[in-house]
Parts: sequence; structure tokens; C-alpha cells
Amino acid sequence: MSADPTDGSGCVFCRIVDGELPAFRVHEDGAVVAFLDRRPLFPGHTLVVPRSHVETLTDLPEESVGPYFGAVRRVTGAVERAMEAEGSFVAGNNRVSQSVPHLHMHVVPRRRKDGLRGFFWPRGRYPDESEARGVAARIRAEL
Amino acid sequence: MSADPTDGSGCVFCRIVDGELPAFRVHEDGAVVAFLDRRPLFPGHTLVVPRSHVETLTDLPEESVGPYFGAVRRVTGAVERAMEAEGSFVAGNNRVSQSVPHLHMHVVPRRRKDGLRGFFWPRGRYPDESEARGVAARIRAEL
Repeated sequence: MSADPTDGSGCVFCRIVDGELPAFRVHEDGAVVAFLDRRPLFPGHTLVVPRSHVETLTDLPEESVGPYFGAVRRVTGAVERAMEAEGSFVAGNNRVSQSVPHLHMHVVPRRRKDGLRGFFWPRGRYPDESEARGVAARIRAEL
Repeated sequence: MSADPTDGSGCVFCRIVDGELPAFRVHEDGAVVAFLDRRPLFPGHTLVVPRSHVETLTDLPEESVGPYFGAVRRVTGAVERAMEAEGSFVAGNNRVSQSVPHLHMHVVPRRRKDGLRGFFWPRGRYPDESEARGVAARIRAEL
């Protein structure tokens, strides 16, 4: 362990991965550890974290994307079946609203009329087509 | 086109993929098409859909997970840079709250104090350790 904050030393999720901190684990493989969120939206709410310390999705190395999201996909099916859910919500926050700076996808079992709505934020519209066209062009330019 | 609803005929996102319906595309490759959500949470809100019609994350074939989420990851970086965002929110709804039954991950640019919170739903706690232990065991059993 060094004092370099980018290596994950002191990171709560790294400590769970290493077994230094307790967690209710539901899955682990060579790429990920998955465990119950301590403050679930609903029982069964699970976090999937890569074993290696990366802060956000864009920091995840290309070669790790398949193994990581393959595990997210498997955990999603397991959470749905185990909780007899009608569906699920799979989400991650990068930097803003990200509680722990170690990549984690939330897998949340859902039921119709469970009191949540996946996207109940006020959604807008582009004022006109040229505005949307300009935004699309800016994103394309970054790809 | 057949009448089999599982092949995506009539699916709005399949029609966008095929170019039958217009969209502000920001990216496409062999695996995905990405385009602006028509009702964005914020400008730049992008949807990434696999070219093949699969309804939910758990329906995505194993071999498609890497290419699909590799594209989600790339689009996330592009949306953040293009919109000069401080972070992002990457999320998908499976069945419940899923507006179009064709897998899509939302990529939403975020800023601190942007009026949203990634998880501002009322979060709970397990009443006791044995409850959490039981839930974890149920999920593990499905993996």
C-alpha cells in the first residue's frame, strides 16, 4: 500500500475486494466482486465492482469491459430471479453523485408500482432541430 | 419482416438502426447505434442500442457484451467531453420503466448541482444482518 490515492489504497471497495472489510457477497470471479449495497433501494440491491481500482467507466481498460459487464449481466439475472422481480435497474454514476470513487454498477430489482420510476426526472426537449443537430455533431467529434 | 414480435419488427429502435426512422446519430459501429434521446434529461443525453433486437440486458448474448459495453464506454467519454460535463450517469431499465423493449443504455452528462441526484430515491437498510445474509444467499444461489 502506498500513499498514491490512484492505487485504491484506503478505498472502501478495494478493502471489500481484499476482504479487509465485511460485505454480503453474492458473486466473485477473476474480474469482479459483487455484494449487497448496505443502503438498498430494495432488498437485493447489489453493487458490482471490478477487482482492480478504477474510478469511473471511462477509466476501465478496454480489455476489462467484457469481463466486467459480463458479470453485471449475470448478476442482473440472478438478482431478478432471486428477488422474483419483474425487472431491474442497472446504473452507474461517474464522478457526480458517485459515492465511492471506485467504479460500481448498481443492480436493483424492480416491480411495477414499486414507487420508483427509472427516469422520473423532468425530461426536456431540444428547442429545435438545429440545436439537437449541433449537440450530436459535438459528440460525434469526440468519438 | 414477420409478425413475430421477438424479431424486432415494428420496434422503434430497430427502425432507427435500419435508418427507417430519423435520429440524431452520434456513433455507430458493427455492434451498436447511438443517438440522442428525443426527450433528454440534459442536452447530450444519448441512447446506445445494440443493432440486434434484444429486449433486456439479460437477453444480450454473452459474446455481444464486450462490443456493446465497449461502445457504451466510448460514448460515455465522448458525451462527457463534448458537453464539458463533470460526470455522467449511465443506466438502463429492464422491463419495468423500460419505454422501448429494445435494450438501451442511457448516457447522461452530469454537473454538480444540476438539480438531479443519481440516486435520490429513499434508500433503506436491512432490518438486521440475518435478513441481509438471507438475501445474499438467495442471489448467490442463482449464480
